[in-house]
Amino acid sequence: MAMNTPLIQKRLKEIVGSENVLDTPEARIAFSYDATAGLSSMPLAAIRPSSAEQISAIVSLANEERFPLVARGSGTGLSGGALPLNNAVVVLMNHWNHILEIDEENLTVTVEPGVITGQLHQTVEKRGLLYPPDPGSSTICTLGGNVAENAGGLRGLKYGVTKNYVLGMQVVLPTGEILNTGGKMVKDVAGYNLKDILVGSEGTLGILTRIILRLIPKPETSRTLLAFFPTMNDAAKTVSAIIAAKITPAMLEFLDNTTIRCVEDYAHLGLPIDAAAMLLVEVDGRNAIIEEDALLVTDICNKNNATSVKMAATEQESIKLKAARRSAFTSLARVKPTTIMEDVGVPRSRLPELVARINEIARKHDVMIGNFGHAGDGNLHPNYLTDSRNKEEYARAEKTVFEVEETAINLGGTITGEHGIGLYKKPLLEKMVGSPAIQMMRTLKTMMDPNNIMNPGKIFELKPRCEGRLPQEREQIKKFEDVAWI
Amino acid sequence: MAMNTPLIQKRLKEIVGSENVLDTPEARIAFSYDATAGLSSMPLAAIRPSSAEQISAIVSLANEERFPLVARGSGTGLSGGALPLNNAVVVLMNHWNHILEIDEENLTVTVEPGVITGQLHQTVEKRGLLYPPDPGSSTICTLGGNVAENAGGLRGLKYGVTKNYVLGMQVVLPTGEILNTGGKMVKDVAGYNLKDILVGSEGTLGILTRIILRLIPKPETSRTLLAFFPTMNDAAKTVSAIIAAKITPAMLEFLDNTTIRCVEDYAHLGLPIDAAAMLLVEVDGRNAIIEEDALLVTDICNKNNATSVKMAATEQESIKLKAARRSAFTSLARVKPTTIMEDVGVPRSRLPELVARINEIARKHDVMIGNFGHAGDGNLHPNYLTDSRNKEEYARAEKTVFEVEETAINLGGTITGEHGIGLYKKPLLEKMVGSPAIQMMRTLKTMMDPNNIMNPGKIFELKPRCEGRLPQEREQIKKFEDVAWI
Repeated sequence: MAMNTPLIQKRLKEIVGSENVLDTPEARIAFSYDATAGLSSMPLAAIRPSSAEQISAIVSLANEERFPLVARGSGTGLSGGALPLNNAVVVLMNHWNHILEIDEENLTVTVEPGVITGQLHQTVEKRGLLYPPDPGSSTICTLGGNVAENAGGLRGLKYGVTKNYVLGMQVVLPTGEILNTGGKMVKDVAGYNLKDILVGSEGTLGILTRIILRLIPKPETSRTLLAFFPTMNDAAKTVSAIIAAKITPAMLEFLDNTTIRCVEDYAHLGLPIDAAAMLLVEVDGRNAIIEEDALLVTDICNKNNATSVKMAATEQESIKLKAARRSAFTSLARVKPTTIMEDVGVPRSRLPELVARINEIARKHDVMIGNFGHAGDGNLHPNYLTDSRNKEEYARAEKTVFEVEETAINLGGTITGEHGIGLYKKPLLEKMVGSPAIQMMRTLKTMMDPNNIMNPGKIFELKPRCEGRLPQEREQIKKFEDVAWI
Repeated sequence: MAMNTPLIQKRLKEIVGSENVLDTPEARIAFSYDATAGLSSMPLAAIRPSSAEQISAIVSLANEERFPLVARGSGTGLSGGALPLNNAVVVLMNHWNHILEIDEENLTVTVEPGVITGQLHQTVEKRGLLYPPDPGSSTICTLGGNVAENAGGLRGLKYGVTKNYVLGMQVVLPTGEILNTGGKMVKDVAGYNLKDILVGSEGTLGILTRIILRLIPKPETSRTLLAFFPTMNDAAKTVSAIIAAKITPAMLEFLDNTTIRCVEDYAHLGLPIDAAAMLLVEVDGRNAIIEEDALLVTDICNKNNATSVKMAATEQESIKLKAARRSAFTSLARVKPTTIMEDVGVPRSRLPELVARINEIARKHDVMIGNFGHAGDGNLHPNYLTDSRNKEEYARAEKTVFEVEETAINLGGTITGEHGIGLYKKPLLEKMVGSPAIQMMRTLKTMMDPNNIMNPGKIFELKPRCEGRLPQEREQIKKFEDVAWI
């Protein structure tokens, strides 16, 4: 479809002001990619709106002139969700960074979508409150992006994910209408649950302009433990035994041997590089019980053949122990030019089987892989260390990705626990969710966004042309000719 | 629309067997009402299917012959959601009462939708696990009904509501397709969140055939406290002070003076009948902290002018203290022939204002009212004690209902915290959620159920003819001619 580019540019400038339309080649390149390996696509322009009404006017214009819009926070997404396909206009939201209200009586906070997640953490923790969702990118990602992706993080096992904390929102719908849904009530069953359709819809059903989040009292204290195991199986048994002991740690994180080695090589933390697996456990709660919990976890680790268990005695030590997990991705990413970070999930009990199968598949395709993730949630991040400039090597990595995703599905799991489908995981979505589900999703999208202007080409194709293809054919998707804007 | 009744009856018998089609007048009367005051409507028949495939065949038949279907568990709903309008066929699900699997490793349970909620509680608690949602009707209501209504209950403040525990489901869609969505994974962001659209959709988007629920470790112990206050304001301050002290009780329930008197009159528990308000507080958790929490709550009650605070020393005593709350509805219901149980919610801090306004409105219309509810959630159940046979009196009660709902909306709240919209609360839904939201709901329904066969006439009208009307006009809705099956 031909777009009337000069007209669109002119009208965008009328709506947001010339200074807020960024259309130089440099600006366009800056917004042509997110944190996903190997994907990029140039936008028509990026714009900085300053009100919901402006966004509504932009959406109306997009419907009239039939051009796509992609909302963007910090661009930390790992599934290509913020990529501007088909000359989309990028709607920048990261300057919407105000915490509008902290309501301590009702334990809610109202924010603009561009607030950095970590900034919210710090602000509410000063008042003795906690916003539990804690994605790995929390120092840089935005709350709007977290809601769009239904972000998880390190505290998922005990505290759940983003959707468990979204009480209300204001959102500009694909028709340009401004919807206010939910509020400060903790319970509300008036009509269909529109809020939870929008959470995790990856920017395809609306652009967030305000969010009301639930807070909880900050736990009195916490203890951090780091344990190393001679086999993956010992680590897995430890996870099961902790759950069986009725302890729900705030964090229960896993690193495999490759990741341990890479972290040690990068961060020099003194980790035992021969260990097959590391578990990071953090228990939190009341002063009176935390020591008991930490000792019980230590005991369980030791009974399951841990070669060493360290408990942090101070906050500084705790940060140091967590550094091993926090620097996992960075450490792996420097080993090879390209890191594909995966995000499969299985029922918790099947995690050891998943890890074993992943290692087999990686060996078969001769791909270097480092596994880490949220052991308590059964959510694993295999990282494929490769080089996108070497076509043969990269093709092997992508085959591995595809087979690992299939394995997760066959184990009763998911191809994405927290990163979303975006562009990257479309090929296997239908295989995972089945035909009635994907048809429902398509119809939902068409119903809410009849002109398909809101982040088109993400999650699924409206016409089922690219679904279920082999990884070799992902190349085509990446060229984007195939992701026609219908 | 004329239905070919003999043909429908014949084909239903072919699908489920003659013995499973109940179409005598006695049977039809038995399924013509639920627990909602003043509403009834005769079904064409009630049927007992025995498999998802049979339900799928019934749904296909309903689409061919254009007759409505209403799934029904125990019929304990309080918004008329299970009423078979327009000669609907009632699909009985309460014999689907098997707990299929308890997975202790993954902390999940898979159930058929007809399992009684209280039965699940007992079964999993024997294994040291907890299914937290705890609706007032838990000894009789079904899990399928709980999911359809997104039921809340007494433990909502600390543990959330039904949707927080639904991991997966099998559901027969209005097209007859069988959808499996979700699974045992605790985190899954693959595509739109279809599961949470279905939870709370009040039987209008599908018939549940299997549910996977999340369990948590059962708290080690609990303490129950009962406190009485000379003013509503003292009770409200106590609630705020408990939250401010970073204690999140499992239960934080409220009874007003009228309810206290009715309970005492009925149950003879020795309650102080002059108290303006009662709070039932239950703290649960680890042995090491529970005594401290209970003493802190006692202290907070005393500091806020409690006239008496009792703590249960034994499990038996705890059950006795909770009896005051558990028998609230029964006690009120025997005062007058008709009890309209309301279900408004506001942000927690606005609860005292809501109670004050409710009492004013009740005085204005000379209606007897007893308030109880979930103080921690801001979710209140005003009970209007009236007589539906006395038209003038009943009209005053309904005016009161309408004005109380409007008040909740004006206080930033909801017209239903846990009972659903059903038939009874349709008139004010649009006023509460706004026009873009109700239009989205209508479109969603039309898209998923193009022939409008699944529990039609509930939540909203497809054509906006009955919305926003005055209470006097509710009569019309109740005659059902107006709720045309479009």
